[in-house]
Amino acid sequence: MRILLIGAAGMIGRKLAVRLAADGAVGGVAITALDLVDVVPPPVPAGLPGRVTVRAADLSAPGTADQLAAARPDLVFHLAAIVSGEAEVDLAKGYRVNLDGTRALLDALMATGTCPRVIFASSLAVFGPPFPARIPDDFAPQPATSYGAQKLMAEILVSDLSRRGLIDGISLRLPTICVRPGAPNRAASGFFSGILREPLAGLPADLPVPETTRHYFASPRAAVGFFLHAATLDTGALGQARALTMPGLSATVGDQIDALRRIAGPSAVALIRRTDDPLVARIVAGWAADFDAARARALGFTVEADMDAILRVHVEDELGGRIVAPASAP
Amino acid sequence: MRILLIGAAGMIGRKLAVRLAADGAVGGVAITALDLVDVVPPPVPAGLPGRVTVRAADLSAPGTADQLAAARPDLVFHLAAIVSGEAEVDLAKGYRVNLDGTRALLDALMATGTCPRVIFASSLAVFGPPFPARIPDDFAPQPATSYGAQKLMAEILVSDLSRRGLIDGISLRLPTICVRPGAPNRAASGFFSGILREPLAGLPADLPVPETTRHYFASPRAAVGFFLHAATLDTGALGQARALTMPGLSATVGDQIDALRRIAGPSAVALIRRTDDPLVARIVAGWAADFDAARARALGFTVEADMDAILRVHVEDELGGRIVAPASAP
Repeated sequence: MRILLIGAAGMIGRKLAVRLAADGAVGGVAITALDLVDVVPPPVPAGLPGRVTVRAADLSAPGTADQLAAARPDLVFHLAAIVSGEAEVDLAKGYRVNLDGTRALLDALMATGTCPRVIFASSLAVFGPPFPARIPDDFAPQPATSYGAQKLMAEILVSDLSRRGLIDGISLRLPTICVRPGAPNRAASGFFSGILREPLAGLPADLPVPETTRHYFASPRAAVGFFLHAATLDTGALGQARALTMPGLSATVGDQIDALRRIAGPSAVALIRRTDDPLVARIVAGWAADFDAARARALGFTVEADMDAILRVHVEDELGGRIVAPASAP
Repeated sequence: MRILLIGAAGMIGRKLAVRLAADGAVGGVAITALDLVDVVPPPVPAGLPGRVTVRAADLSAPGTADQLAAARPDLVFHLAAIVSGEAEVDLAKGYRVNLDGTRALLDALMATGTCPRVIFASSLAVFGPPFPARIPDDFAPQPATSYGAQKLMAEILVSDLSRRGLIDGISLRLPTICVRPGAPNRAASGFFSGILREPLAGLPADLPVPETTRHYFASPRAAVGFFLHAATLDTGALGQARALTMPGLSATVGDQIDALRRIAGPSAVALIRRTDDPLVARIVAGWAADFDAARARALGFTVEADMDAILRVHVEDELGGRIVAPASAP
């Protein structure tokens, strides 16, 4: 099996590449080639006996998509994107990469005549307010950002080309990833991970919103699992509805803090600093708090059952099983 | 007021141009320039004191959109499209015209910095089965054709650019137009107009589906009214939901025939030949039968109240008020 993974230097992309290399197979079929692509050179995962190619390329640049499709991949993971904030600031770049790049890729894959399985990383940003408390699978998308609009347009293209039998596509609408590894960033959602990740490393973290704030989460490991499950799913069961809201854990900030207390103790919780930020609180209040995701669950997609499990994934996968005691702890 | 009308040689486009020229104003503001564009030269409507320009141009060809936007229109009607059947047969052409052409137009209009009102002719083909008996305004679009996918993608772009204040757009999802003037065509929906239009002209017509078949209609005159109403609508009331399902009349083929009998008598009805066509019946069975359109109605969009009114519009607007007796009638 030949696999093309675009966006392989991103957080989920790197983990997916590591997992593919470690597994050596998808659905029991050996991976003979793994092409890793991103705008910066992606890291080479260890362990794959098959050929691993690493390429730094811009999917939206002329010719790139055709070059990538020339290897006639059987399975394509498309995770490359301009993120939400940048897509809102730079309108043309967002449409060029998130829409035109995706279209160029699908056009090039179509032209191979091989109807590859294509897993497209979409987003719950396709939905916009007003929201019901728990959003059903048949809720009508209404993007409130250009990023969400671009992801939705790409989803529609994936569905249309799949209906025509030109590709065999699935779009995965991902929950907010938590705990997101790495340094704190300026994304409005950053604190959802920061208030767990930083204290688990013995460092302070800011909490800019009330503890009653509710959001919808999956671990990075669960996200990798979504992509792998989608790779072998029987798409005959999907019909024309090729975009799936992934299962997630709906939890409040209070739930997150309670889990942190259980996993790492009160000294870790004491590292969270309440720093009210009305702007962040207002942004986050416009986000959805919960999704039903009944369809994806029925199709076998799974996610953590509680916030404790999400924390344990982080401790195992990022911290080598070790929680760092805060400097000020006894 | 400077108006740009693209798709001005089409059935609705021609009628809209005639109406604009006759009115000489939109919302009480005099029309100083009317630019009529289509891939074939559109007819010049009579009566407008302002400047009328006629242009044969392909919106999806490089440079066309910029040329059209250079006149800095205040109001743009965009009705140009590859129709459903052709978009299904020629995938690349459908995306090029229906998506890329629309995007080129909107990009060029954005670049003027004038935030023009843009009325985009969308379609109920954005929806796909399974349908409820009466489709509510918040039903999630799921196109079953490439045409529907292209229209939906363009709607999302119109909404996103309007949210950003770059254009002031509205997408109108039009019902099936009935009675469609002109010669019979091979569209699967053609009989809905044919069984009325042909007998009213004293000619026979084929009916390939059962009389219980239900569909959703508006007259050409009502469609022109939708565009004119959208031109002066207060878009502040729309929020981010810029795509509107237009009101229509839900009626069965039996309702159509009853109306024909009342308007033109039993001899006209006798010109309808039952010619069962399982393929057409199967295609039509996949179409929606009724829409709520509560939102558009609340915003002041109006349509005929019954099939008799739809027939009378045809007799007045196309037949000069005169019904032709069938050759075989007494």
